[in-house]
Amino acid sequence: MKSNPFNDYAASINAAIEEYTLNKQECFFKPISYILSLKAKRVRSSLFLFSCDLFNLEKKALIYGALAIEFFHNFTLIHDDIMDSAPLRRGKKTLHKKWSTNTAILAGDTLMVEAYIMLNKLSKKRGFCNAFNLFNSTAIFVCKGQQMDLNFEDEKDIALENYLKMIEYKTAVLLGCSLKMAGCFSSNIKDLELLYQVGINMGLAFQLQDDLLDIYSDKSGKKIGGDILLNKKTLPYFLARKTANTQQKEELMSIYSSRNHTHKVAKTLALFNLLDVKEKGEQLVGLYFKKAFGCLEKVTAPKNKKIFLIEYLDFLASRSY
Amino acid sequence: MKSNPFNDYAASINAAIEEYTLNKQECFFKPISYILSLKAKRVRSSLFLFSCDLFNLEKKALIYGALAIEFFHNFTLIHDDIMDSAPLRRGKKTLHKKWSTNTAILAGDTLMVEAYIMLNKLSKKRGFCNAFNLFNSTAIFVCKGQQMDLNFEDEKDIALENYLKMIEYKTAVLLGCSLKMAGCFSSNIKDLELLYQVGINMGLAFQLQDDLLDIYSDKSGKKIGGDILLNKKTLPYFLARKTANTQQKEELMSIYSSRNHTHKVAKTLALFNLLDVKEKGEQLVGLYFKKAFGCLEKVTAPKNKKIFLIEYLDFLASRSY
Repeated sequence: MKSNPFNDYAASINAAIEEYTLNKQECFFKPISYILSLKAKRVRSSLFLFSCDLFNLEKKALIYGALAIEFFHNFTLIHDDIMDSAPLRRGKKTLHKKWSTNTAILAGDTLMVEAYIMLNKLSKKRGFCNAFNLFNSTAIFVCKGQQMDLNFEDEKDIALENYLKMIEYKTAVLLGCSLKMAGCFSSNIKDLELLYQVGINMGLAFQLQDDLLDIYSDKSGKKIGGDILLNKKTLPYFLARKTANTQQKEELMSIYSSRNHTHKVAKTLALFNLLDVKEKGEQLVGLYFKKAFGCLEKVTAPKNKKIFLIEYLDFLASRSY
Repeated sequence: MKSNPFNDYAASINAAIEEYTLNKQECFFKPISYILSLKAKRVRSSLFLFSCDLFNLEKKALIYGALAIEFFHNFTLIHDDIMDSAPLRRGKKTLHKKWSTNTAILAGDTLMVEAYIMLNKLSKKRGFCNAFNLFNSTAIFVCKGQQMDLNFEDEKDIALENYLKMIEYKTAVLLGCSLKMAGCFSSNIKDLELLYQVGINMGLAFQLQDDLLDIYSDKSGKKIGGDILLNKKTLPYFLARKTANTQQKEELMSIYSSRNHTHKVAKTLALFNLLDVKEKGEQLVGLYFKKAFGCLEKVTAPKNKKIFLIEYLDFLASRSY
């Protein structure tokens, strides 16, 4: 795997988070400090800082925007983990397992407010209203995406397109927001929509890749095939369903509705292999990465400024099993 | 019971909510529209509008501040009801009962973001930064109060003073915020702290009165003695514990740790009656109302502007069983 060209950005975020948590020693803030301290890639907040550099904006003055995004993202993780009954996050206990569901609900709520407290530190800057607006509309999309995801569990006939729309909302818009938001504070607004599209496409690529990694990798810090065991329909399921014959489709549906866990992952993998799911998935992931590169190409900023994001996309695309 | 002098304010809020929900016809917004449509007193948002009048600010331009407060309040109700496993809210099914816990968590999250979307509509006004700051710090207090409330369920020895601190955070600060926030948009800032204190004291009075109503009234739209059945220690419990002799204290603790519901409410009420709990509770409620009146007296605005809040406090103080 290549080295991460965003390492410096991630280090800045981690330092800012450490400073933030130093001032939050009260027992009440423990669950928040816990989730923020888990080793994480800081993808979204790094994209924000990259964007500051792209627009020649001072990163130090806008670090609160990066924290707002990182806090918001972690808030969604806390609540999503409750809804998914997930035992692990980043290889460690989820908040509702370490404390309780009620404390986890509240910790999520508090972290969301803390995100807005970070945002308020930028409220006297020109362009704040647009940044605030983008942040809020993104947050609504993220909630909507999560609700679609929940609805999918009970629905039988979901088209791949609907699944893609769901992850666009649930995951991709926040990456788009991360790349666009710093630019709201700049006077150069012509690249904003393109940057948003880079984020959307890399978000789709990233999430679809995650779907594959959940099933084909043991490095994600989660249980292998966790999605299968939870009957969670993700990219491999939709790809399999698209080309399966009647008998295979029935087998697939029977596996994904069963609560019997014996050999469940192995059976599913065998079927997926028959249907070339992994290859097709990788093709789709590649397509979205290509779209992201294409949009980035059109961004008018000089190439030497864009190079970090190009390398970062390369780095993400190289995530291995 | 006296008539509500804030009826006109509440009517404005209801009209604004109706207009808001008209634009939210999507299935995703149904749980939010549902909770906002339940018959409610709109205490907090009415206080905000009253405060606009007090500061000679145009209510129409600041209605979004009132909505932000009302939305935030309803978000807390949704999540609190999940944490309390409450079946009813305002006499109707709670969201997690009508839909599911997951959908209710998400609806709460969404409504909180919608509160910030309302706030953003004021972000170009002078004083927004202070209003935003007040709103956020209030939100943190509210979360902290709810966490204290949860912790109390497992703690044995809680002093009345800690209980009062908890409801100051969980309930009173939002009333203080409601009375103070409009003033952030005014150039007259000298009354802000006094108004905040009016809100804190009326919030304490209001919540302690609610504690009494839960046990002594069948008009609250909730189950009578619901708090007792949930082993939820509220004002009557702390007052009883303060004067109970050793035997009575043991009886009280035994009732509040038991899961046997037979005659539980009746047994508790008999003990409360022996210990003059109702009278002592009413005295405390009266004390906080008096403090609220005292602070309001000192507010420099002309009496003819303050009269509505004086009457409203009278109205609240007259809530009957």
